[in-house]
Amino acid sequence: MWRTVAPVSPVQVRLNSTMKAMTYRGPHQIAVEDRPKPKVLDPTDAIIRMTKATICGTDLGIWKGKNPEIEETARAKTGEWNGRILGHEGIGIVDEVGPAVRHFKKGDKVIISCVSRCGSCENCQKQLYSHCLNGGGWIMGYMIDGTHAEYVRTPFADNSLYALPENLNTDVAVFLSDVLPTGHEMGVQYGDVKPGDTIALVGAGPVGMGAMLTAQFYSPSQIICIDQDQNRLDFAKEMGATHTINSSTEDAVAKVMEITGGRGVDCAIEAVGVPATWDVCQQIVTAGGHLANVGVHGQKVDFELQKLWIQNLTITTGLVNANTTAMLLKACETGKLPMERLATHHFKFNEIQKAYDVFKHASDNKAMKVIIEY
Amino acid sequence: MWRTVAPVSPVQVRLNSTMKAMTYRGPHQIAVEDRPKPKVLDPTDAIIRMTKATICGTDLGIWKGKNPEIEETARAKTGEWNGRILGHEGIGIVDEVGPAVRHFKKGDKVIISCVSRCGSCENCQKQLYSHCLNGGGWIMGYMIDGTHAEYVRTPFADNSLYALPENLNTDVAVFLSDVLPTGHEMGVQYGDVKPGDTIALVGAGPVGMGAMLTAQFYSPSQIICIDQDQNRLDFAKEMGATHTINSSTEDAVAKVMEITGGRGVDCAIEAVGVPATWDVCQQIVTAGGHLANVGVHGQKVDFELQKLWIQNLTITTGLVNANTTAMLLKACETGKLPMERLATHHFKFNEIQKAYDVFKHASDNKAMKVIIEY
Amino acid sequence: MWRTVAPVSPVQVRLNSTMKAMTYRGPHQIAVEDRPKPKVLDPTDAIIRMTKATICGTDLGIWKGKNPEIEETARAKTGEWNGRILGHEGIGIVDEVGPAVRHFKKGDKVIISCVSRCGSCENCQKQLYSHCLNGGGWIMGYMIDGTHAEYVRTPFADNSLYALPENLNTDVAVFLSDVLPTGHEMGVQYGDVKPGDTIALVGAGPVGMGAMLTAQFYSPSQIICIDQDQNRLDFAKEMGATHTINSSTEDAVAKVMEITGGRGVDCAIEAVGVPATWDVCQQIVTAGGHLANVGVHGQKVDFELQKLWIQNLTITTGLVNANTTAMLLKACETGKLPMERLATHHFKFNEIQKAYDVFKHASDNKAMKVIIEY
Amino acid sequence: MWRTVAPVSPVQVRLNSTMKAMTYRGPHQIAVEDRPKPKVLDPTDAIIRMTKATICGTDLGIWKGKNPEIEETARAKTGEWNGRILGHEGIGIVDEVGPAVRHFKKGDKVIISCVSRCGSCENCQKQLYSHCLNGGGWIMGYMIDGTHAEYVRTPFADNSLYALPENLNTDVAVFLSDVLPTGHEMGVQYGDVKPGDTIALVGAGPVGMGAMLTAQFYSPSQIICIDQDQNRLDFAKEMGATHTINSSTEDAVAKVMEITGGRGVDCAIEAVGVPATWDVCQQIVTAGGHLANVGVHGQKVDFELQKLWIQNLTITTGLVNANTTAMLLKACETGKLPMERLATHHFKFNEIQKAYDVFKHASDNKAMKVIIEY
Repeated sequence: MWRTVAPVSPVQVRLNSTMKAMTYRGPHQIAVEDRPKPKVLDPTDAIIRMTKATICGTDLGIWKGKNPEIEETARAKTGEWNGRILGHEGIGIVDEVGPAVRHFKKGDKVIISCVSRCGSCENCQKQLYSHCLNGGGWIMGYMIDGTHAEYVRTPFADNSLYALPENLNTDVAVFLSDVLPTGHEMGVQYGDVKPGDTIALVGAGPVGMGAMLTAQFYSPSQIICIDQDQNRLDFAKEMGATHTINSSTEDAVAKVMEITGGRGVDCAIEAVGVPATWDVCQQIVTAGGHLANVGVHGQKVDFELQKLWIQNLTITTGLVNANTTAMLLKACETGKLPMERLATHHFKFNEIQKAYDVFKHASDNKAMKVIIEY
Repeated sequence: MWRTVAPVSPVQVRLNSTMKAMTYRGPHQIAVEDRPKPKVLDPTDAIIRMTKATICGTDLGIWKGKNPEIEETARAKTGEWNGRILGHEGIGIVDEVGPAVRHFKKGDKVIISCVSRCGSCENCQKQLYSHCLNGGGWIMGYMIDGTHAEYVRTPFADNSLYALPENLNTDVAVFLSDVLPTGHEMGVQYGDVKPGDTIALVGAGPVGMGAMLTAQFYSPSQIICIDQDQNRLDFAKEMGATHTINSSTEDAVAKVMEITGGRGVDCAIEAVGVPATWDVCQQIVTAGGHLANVGVHGQKVDFELQKLWIQNLTITTGLVNANTTAMLLKACETGKLPMERLATHHFKFNEIQKAYDVFKHASDNKAMKVIIEY
Repeated sequence: MWRTVAPVSPVQVRLNSTMKAMTYRGPHQIAVEDRPKPKVLDPTDAIIRMTKATICGTDLGIWKGKNPEIEETARAKTGEWNGRILGHEGIGIVDEVGPAVRHFKKGDKVIISCVSRCGSCENCQKQLYSHCLNGGGWIMGYMIDGTHAEYVRTPFADNSLYALPENLNTDVAVFLSDVLPTGHEMGVQYGDVKPGDTIALVGAGPVGMGAMLTAQFYSPSQIICIDQDQNRLDFAKEMGATHTINSSTEDAVAKVMEITGGRGVDCAIEAVGVPATWDVCQQIVTAGGHLANVGVHGQKVDFELQKLWIQNLTITTGLVNANTTAMLLKACETGKLPMERLATHHFKFNEIQKAYDVFKHASDNKAMKVIIEY
Repeated sequence: MWRTVAPVSPVQVRLNSTMKAMTYRGPHQIAVEDRPKPKVLDPTDAIIRMTKATICGTDLGIWKGKNPEIEETARAKTGEWNGRILGHEGIGIVDEVGPAVRHFKKGDKVIISCVSRCGSCENCQKQLYSHCLNGGGWIMGYMIDGTHAEYVRTPFADNSLYALPENLNTDVAVFLSDVLPTGHEMGVQYGDVKPGDTIALVGAGPVGMGAMLTAQFYSPSQIICIDQDQNRLDFAKEMGATHTINSSTEDAVAKVMEITGGRGVDCAIEAVGVPATWDVCQQIVTAGGHLANVGVHGQKVDFELQKLWIQNLTITTGLVNANTTAMLLKACETGKLPMERLATHHFKFNEIQKAYDVFKHASDNKAMKVIIEY
């Protein structure tokens, strides 16, 4: 009646049944392990053989133990906890599809979105895929096993994979999993960046750079980048920043006001996630402007409503919906912006531990994004 | 070359040169005084003979001494301080126009907008009239003399007056000065209220009611009104609330979650201006929802970004632009919503002191808006 | 691994294997026939036992032979043509679901959307579901068998069904399949109807009424309804029209200009589909206004660009995406608008031939929508 | 009370009372004449001493006699007709301002917008400045004397002039009067051009180029330019077109479909104004796409609604509102796009007749925009 999963021969089972995977077992405990190769569980699943991946700040957050819900949820569901394969970014080749997958077949080269979605729930109908009510959202490398392995199971494959065009740089393709859509949707779109705007990027890490690069699709006239790491600021300048402010040596707010003639910025993008950077943002946005929070915060912040109630501000928060991935893919194919330069380091998959080490000390290593090749 | 102001005869001068005005001279010092009748100062000015006005919470704020900048600014400009006539709402009849006024002439019945605008500066070009860079914005009864007098000078008259239609209830017309546009723009439009939405109104005072009434132009399916004053909640119910929560006796957050099946609201409108009501709002907005701050805050608030960074919220603040006044005027003419019921008390202008007293103790007096008739 | 379809017992097969269905076999050839009960073909299918349906003008179009592609496509695919079960509207009870259906289960009461969608293709990602590139769009009762039968197979069930709330009038629920979303999306949303607007509805048939009713969710101040059938105009008045024009006896354009003081309308909704009504629309839209075409046209029209190039018009066309069905469902639950009155006639399913006859002569029968009860 | 116009001494009168001006007196009758220098007539007027101007296709249209309303209107108003000074584009230096002008003073360098606006009427409140109801809109060089003279009177000066930044190329500044805002607003904004889009420009003349250049502010991935003039197509390629189609030798529709893999374009911009180019546009727009008409049409067109009713198209028309001039000015200051290359020819003002001649035969002269320097 519909395509069924072909029976697997004993030989195949022996050959393919295990794979290498970078697994989190508890705070500061990550290691490459042998794990069973994933199988199709739902008719809408696909299994992808990974070819390239990258590491996200969120992966480091898990490693640090910031997400105890990973273990709690697993134990609550099944009573046991066998570790979690990390990673939610990457590209690969379709190895197997469930019987309800229509758009992809074995052998297709694909980009894996960091956000899965059922496509049908109330939130998905609003394109709020990050809050999918049916087991979607950000789940890979978090609530289910992720991409830092030779194979990964992607749920809702039709909604979570994108065909990888031949002419797209494969490092850029990897960035389309998360860092470019996150910067674009949570920073640039929520921040309503328009031609001629003056924008400020507070935080010149990978997501900040994702926002800065995709902001340029809309031709702002001034891009002020603020960070404490001069290397990153120098990099930002090469990537399109018109002004940089080193907030370890300069008063960022005062400097922004000087650059803008006292007016402030049309859009401030918070891409760090601490009270100090939030505070800079709320002080530099002009009346009628946007403050787009992209950073992941660990504590509450002070919101100066006694000053800002009158300022006609729009403040946004959020997790990427990946609803602009297809748009960004097309825009990146033109090659007009140096997206590929975000890839500062390349490692083989058997060096993934080293890749994590480099990314943990990104500043010392002048690292922006590290690419892992399988 | 252009119309000039006709010379005024000595008799007219004697007859018309003074008027009664409710004047603020310092904290808790307001009184009806004789003041010179205003004159056209700029070619774009008009002089309006008032016929109806109302009192705003902001007028009471000034009375309480919350706006010391009023005196400071006046002294800085002219070295002296002669008090400030209060009021920024009302309707009247055009008495005189400057030579650059094109749309209005003596005898026209008009609604006076609480916001003046040059129409040409960077902000006015964005319809951000509240932040007019050329001496506009909210200035009447604040930076210049206001409407609680027999006559008022309105700057930028072409941009600040609206022709009063014959068939519009004149109390409703008065509400088009401020309370309806403020509720509509800062609450409903910024809050993106749509058909079928579930919305919460935190604060059932006049501006909250302005938001609740104008929200109904967009057909939300559930309107939850939260306040500590049962009279106001009962009134809200009559004005369209589908649910009310008395937060002096009920846990507002828990109750909203119960009503919404744990989902929260699409839009929470903050219409009080204190940390506690802000806090209710940030706890009840659903993922992807809006928090529209309308309240005037006197202190900072805690913003729970550690929980909300991931929620794809849009939080807005602001002072009314009065850019929807014409739209609201047309929509109010249909008479489908009981806007006029906001007028709970009526006073003659010679009773204005009493009107202030009633409005100061609005809750005790079951007062929503007090109308002053000249 | 995933839910499988339970085996069907021989008894059930015998009892359930056929059903009654209204089938189109060629121009002017429709008849109730015995047809096999539909089966799940794709994992995302559901089978619905119909409880209520209605007839659309498009069904009559097929009956008249306007859609020869129905037979051509069927023959091209399978070499044969066995007729097509009509109908794309209705509500029912889920009888069976494919293994990839997550949101619905046997026994659920559902509304069937006239538009199916894969949810994943380029167009579906833009919410342009009517142009789904994977076999979705309007297909039921057209490219696949439809709802005018005891059972219907709905593809992409998670994306094409809506849970029917207990408190919703079931006639209104039937209208949520097509006539209300079509009027709302193609007329009201594409036409950008806003509070205070003056709108014109050219055509007071069912879809025109769907637009007129859903327009009221946005509080336009004037609703001018134009038709040649006085009964329909009288009905429109009861449903919310503020003005009606009988274009068989009055000059519609002149009359609209008279009503609007020479200004024209903010939005004209074309809900007939002939050159004459298009022409009225293009003559009555004010500068900066919207002309929303909802009608199904059989021939080209004259577009007076020599006059209209300068008018800053927005003209829209389209087939419903049904992306506002959930929104409308919530808004209809309030019961504030008399949607249920669109149902002017009710028939039992065994009288469906009679229902078609009445609807074919809708004007004579003062029929708006005819409901078929199973 | 307000600033008054200083009395002019007899000497000044003699020295300044006349100026040279390019005047239209009837079809094919234009000539440089001595005309009185313009004076402030309304308090909101300014007098500008021209420094640079350019010629528009509309000026040629007037020359050809396409606008008999020019003479008719003048005669209807004053009973006589003294010719009309042409031109609605240019930059200059403020020579005098009326007493209600606030933003500009004598000596300021300014860009003159082709659209004037009162700023207060119903249409101006919607930013529909092209349809200003108080004597604004496109009036210079049409209903009042224009910029092809040593001096020009600009009404509503605060709303119609833009401060010319020192660092902006002055040829580009001239293009900000009309060709860039027209291309941007009527083509790019109305056409909803987004990153990654495929767009087609039908017509590679100055306005088409204005659209093509400003479209690039939004990073479309494919720009297909269609024209019959190979020189213009070659020029378009240098200005950013990714594909060109010479419709005198190729089937434009077939070629667009080939380039887009049968999909069509997201946005077709019509920048010619004849039925044939309209027709190409309506055939190449993909479902859900935009057709933005920028061309000035002299006759009606066939609109294939029998095919397009189902296509979810948005078709727009209109005259520029110049409400994005400030935005474009900022975006042009970055110098990232070669706007200045539109200026293919430069003439002194005493050669203006020659400039007209060159522009009349633009194709033969490989002319795009001709700059006139005073």
